[in-house]
Amino acid sequence: MKRLDALRQEVLEANLALKEKNLIISTWGNVSVYDAESGVMIIKASGVPYDSMGLDDMVAVDRDGQVIDSAKRPSSDTPTHLYLYRHFAGEGVRSIVHTHSQYATIWAQSCLPLPCYGTTHADYFHGPVPCTRQMSDEEIRERYEENTGKVIVEALAHTNPIHTSAVLVASHGPFTWGKNPADAVFHAEVLEYVAKMGLYNRLLTPGIESAKESLSDKHYFRKFGPGAYYGQP
Amino acid sequence: MKRLDALRQEVLEANLALKEKNLIISTWGNVSVYDAESGVMIIKASGVPYDSMGLDDMVAVDRDGQVIDSAKRPSSDTPTHLYLYRHFAGEGVRSIVHTHSQYATIWAQSCLPLPCYGTTHADYFHGPVPCTRQMSDEEIRERYEENTGKVIVEALAHTNPIHTSAVLVASHGPFTWGKNPADAVFHAEVLEYVAKMGLYNRLLTPGIESAKESLSDKHYFRKFGPGAYYGQP
Amino acid sequence: MKRLDALRQEVLEANLALKEKNLIISTWGNVSVYDAESGVMIIKASGVPYDSMGLDDMVAVDRDGQVIDSAKRPSSDTPTHLYLYRHFAGEGVRSIVHTHSQYATIWAQSCLPLPCYGTTHADYFHGPVPCTRQMSDEEIRERYEENTGKVIVEALAHTNPIHTSAVLVASHGPFTWGKNPADAVFHAEVLEYVAKMGLYNRLLTPGIESAKESLSDKHYFRKFGPGAYYGQP
Amino acid sequence: MKRLDALRQEVLEANLALKEKNLIISTWGNVSVYDAESGVMIIKASGVPYDSMGLDDMVAVDRDGQVIDSAKRPSSDTPTHLYLYRHFAGEGVRSIVHTHSQYATIWAQSCLPLPCYGTTHADYFHGPVPCTRQMSDEEIRERYEENTGKVIVEALAHTNPIHTSAVLVASHGPFTWGKNPADAVFHAEVLEYVAKMGLYNRLLTPGIESAKESLSDKHYFRKFGPGAYYGQP
Repeated sequence: MKRLDALRQEVLEANLALKEKNLIISTWGNVSVYDAESGVMIIKASGVPYDSMGLDDMVAVDRDGQVIDSAKRPSSDTPTHLYLYRHFAGEGVRSIVHTHSQYATIWAQSCLPLPCYGTTHADYFHGPVPCTRQMSDEEIRERYEENTGKVIVEALAHTNPIHTSAVLVASHGPFTWGKNPADAVFHAEVLEYVAKMGLYNRLLTPGIESAKESLSDKHYFRKFGPGAYYGQP
Repeated sequence: MKRLDALRQEVLEANLALKEKNLIISTWGNVSVYDAESGVMIIKASGVPYDSMGLDDMVAVDRDGQVIDSAKRPSSDTPTHLYLYRHFAGEGVRSIVHTHSQYATIWAQSCLPLPCYGTTHADYFHGPVPCTRQMSDEEIRERYEENTGKVIVEALAHTNPIHTSAVLVASHGPFTWGKNPADAVFHAEVLEYVAKMGLYNRLLTPGIESAKESLSDKHYFRKFGPGAYYGQP
Repeated sequence: MKRLDALRQEVLEANLALKEKNLIISTWGNVSVYDAESGVMIIKASGVPYDSMGLDDMVAVDRDGQVIDSAKRPSSDTPTHLYLYRHFAGEGVRSIVHTHSQYATIWAQSCLPLPCYGTTHADYFHGPVPCTRQMSDEEIRERYEENTGKVIVEALAHTNPIHTSAVLVASHGPFTWGKNPADAVFHAEVLEYVAKMGLYNRLLTPGIESAKESLSDKHYFRKFGPGAYYGQP
Repeated sequence: MKRLDALRQEVLEANLALKEKNLIISTWGNVSVYDAESGVMIIKASGVPYDSMGLDDMVAVDRDGQVIDSAKRPSSDTPTHLYLYRHFAGEGVRSIVHTHSQYATIWAQSCLPLPCYGTTHADYFHGPVPCTRQMSDEEIRERYEENTGKVIVEALAHTNPIHTSAVLVASHGPFTWGKNPADAVFHAEVLEYVAKMGLYNRLLTPGIESAKESLSDKHYFRKFGPGAYYGQP
């Protein structure tokens, strides 16, 4: 269980980073990590304030969401996270972050995908950040949290989740993910940054078009493509 | 009077929290707490700056607004608070907060209710945050502060004040409330957060509609309904 | 000269307060104080950064702008300040502040007066904050700084400068004033606060009207009128 | 090499200043300095986070971009910087800064030059801050970073780069420069400040015109012209 202890620590640090980066207030949001080998997910306990959070607020659950070794209830979004790992773990997704960060949430509340308006976006997300469809009343009333996962997977149907590591859930807010908790938190930070700029671009230039595809490709792949030359070797 | 001393401390801390959460500058705003048993209300003294505030700036008044034991004048908004306790204390309202926090005040200055555009709002306020009607010249000139309470109660006429624990006073700013001072301050913080997002949603999507009622119900009642499952038991 | 030493200290503290309140960056802006008895004005030295400012950066000048006892050049805006004291000192104006604070400057750059949209504004400014006319090319090329004072006085022609203690200089930025440096700085802070809210009110409700005159009167005069009842006696 | 050591220290401090002034997050952006005598440029290493940056992350390269004495890769924007020094060093440009600061980037993403709307802008930039044309697909695919330099030089074709020490690269973000790293960083800070105000001016007054040319001249040349009288002698 040493690996789990290390993961628990990583999830705690990632949760605290959300607060430090002003992506969260109160108890809003959560980070999880998934251990593919054991099928264990560690996730923040439900409704725990970010101001006083410790290792024992990081709850381990199995693939069915059953708590393994904690007195605390896991996040109410647990079924969403599990659904996403079920579909995305095979592609390398190991950590998921959910926030109500303001500018990403504004796009989600307007039920709009976030277009790629420039290189800041293109450096981390390849193409627009999709927005889910609205859920039906039935999907909301029954198995709501699992259905949240379902509409996310639908929205990413034609996209590589590693290249597009963020989504906007309509009328709700953003989920982001990555290879590890620090990566997923960083994607939440980048998303908020470009969501703010994108909002103002829409106000400044109502009919604004996305950046050129060649530019988006150039920036994304000079960082993450096979011939990447950005960063240190 | 030990209970009153404890309440005085709670009101002081809540006042200071308003400043720490950037909901207030200078002397703008106030927190009160109401002790239903004795009918005593404790409220910030009038015009006291948040930078240098102590326990003796928390003034106790009786149901008629008469100062009980302080050399200081209570907040000029005292009649508003007393009016609200008269109508809402029976429903469990024990603390009231008034601020001029910027985004909530913008909605109030536009004389618009704040619709529920997403789950961040729905998690704490069930339905839109109402805006009062504008007061008549007569209501402004005579018994202005008490009439402020009157138009707030009118605006909440068909609403449970515990489910809708905030209001926007037209051309003025927000009042929020709760079961205790920390709760009322938290509602002021949430209101400011969703007021900012809602403003941008209106600019981004001029004809934007509210979130689905089923979603608003789901989020509010999974936290506060009889079958609530959010948070720790 | 003890009085002058005390004033110098006040001006320094007020200058530093501008920075602390995020109303200024770099060297932008200045505070002056006017000693009506001796006709001496103390003002920040020209182009001095706010990060390293001391008492010897506060320069005393006489009514004609001649430096009295300093190795430093006074602010290039010195003729503006002197012009304003010439016209407003009789009404009790003893300190003037100039900043490029962002939201007030936006209104100034749009050459628009700031209407009173609510009680936050009405609590400190009675009526709209006027905007000067644009200066002619001649007024800009010759005696520019003095002419800045001239268009400010014109813009306040029908207003009591104590009740309307702020102005927007077209294409430039705000000047505020008061009974002493702390008062003038506070008006700069309030102006920035209401300028931000007013800007968003204009975007949210394009045809928005000012708050009712009865409300504006009520709030201003309950603080500053003969029967004022706000604050401590 | 003492001069190079001193320059290395200057570039490091300028990089750190970008973070302190909230012009940068993560690894986004870079500062370079150019030693005209030796033809050596020192620039931030590629992809290095601002949170943990030291002198050995400042990489020296020659005029062809060949690393002189570092184990680290220089910024991927190295060819852009070298191109600009090739064209602007003769006019006194000794340091270049690139950021993705939010408001300047918004204008760049909207592919719009930033007009001079007031004296804050005119105090530092003479005339509008130009925006480059969009690059062709070919220019993006081959020698992208050098071509970024090329379109910048094109955009400044009829402008003195010392009087207009900033540019917006379409769909990307700002570059600024100056006589030394502190100067170039300061221009990045001023650009962000006026880009924010200019954005809101466009929203508040859609057809807004630039400030009068006489005012722009007055403010720029009272600081930087032959008869400058702003600041200390």
